[in-house]
Amino acid sequence: MFTPRPIGFVRSPHKDTADVPKGLGAKHEAEGTLDILPEFEPGLKDIEGFSHLLVLWEFDRVQGFELLGTPPCDDRSHGVFATRSPYRPNPIGLTVVELLRREGPQLHVRGVDMLDGTPILDVKPYLSSIPEEKLRRGWLAEAEARKDGR
Amino acid sequence: MFTPRPIGFVRSPHKDTADVPKGLGAKHEAEGTLDILPEFEPGLKDIEGFSHLLVLWEFDRVQGFELLGTPPCDDRSHGVFATRSPYRPNPIGLTVVELLRREGPQLHVRGVDMLDGTPILDVKPYLSSIPEEKLRRGWLAEAEARKDGR
Repeated sequence: MFTPRPIGFVRSPHKDTADVPKGLGAKHEAEGTLDILPEFEPGLKDIEGFSHLLVLWEFDRVQGFELLGTPPCDDRSHGVFATRSPYRPNPIGLTVVELLRREGPQLHVRGVDMLDGTPILDVKPYLSSIPEEKLRRGWLAEAEARKDGR
Repeated sequence: MFTPRPIGFVRSPHKDTADVPKGLGAKHEAEGTLDILPEFEPGLKDIEGFSHLLVLWEFDRVQGFELLGTPPCDDRSHGVFATRSPYRPNPIGLTVVELLRREGPQLHVRGVDMLDGTPILDVKPYLSSIPEEKLRRGWLAEAEARKDGR
């Protein structure tokens, strides 16, 4: 397979995993920057036109993986591919951010849930959404319903 | 950085890139399977509850990258991070699929735009959408408008 390389690094107010909002209803409103390395800056041409971006990044402070885990928002275990756990066979994170503005190789964004210094693997434009009414969210919806006493 | 490993392989009706619908308004309705390797099957627990999945995979038949490229749906060049081009510094693809059913380690899905045999890096649950009315889609919206004569 390919050999991953960072195309840049995240600047985030989250210095430690404890700083990142977690659990049901967690809001990711933190602002930060995606600092793209100068050699890759030409790849940002026309990115300003998109309101939202998909950011792929490395869980660089995680060792190993767990196929089953209990997320912070539930008391039951689920498979890693049914959760956003960082303990994945390939430690790749995915975050949707809102693009606020670009300054050269620096993208100012809202919605960072990555730690400061996280290596960025890729940035892609967010093109379309699945309508909310078509989404089923399995154990997560069940955990929310239990929390609400439904 | 981490060393990528396949967690499974895509079975797709697309044997060649020419088979994959491309360009403006391309619909990805093809059905296929995500064949997860037996050693990772426990990681699928409770995935059946989700209607849609995010699949990360390797562009395994692509060599090298291009920071600027002209997509099939436009006659102007754009930065690779503003497109879904396969010629990326990290050749990682991202596809949203609808989960039709699970049979053991095999996920039957709709919406495959990957080639048959594509290595899968990760599967994540699709949890929420950005409302369409909040999305701006830059050059893509402009190309659509030109095509429609708007």
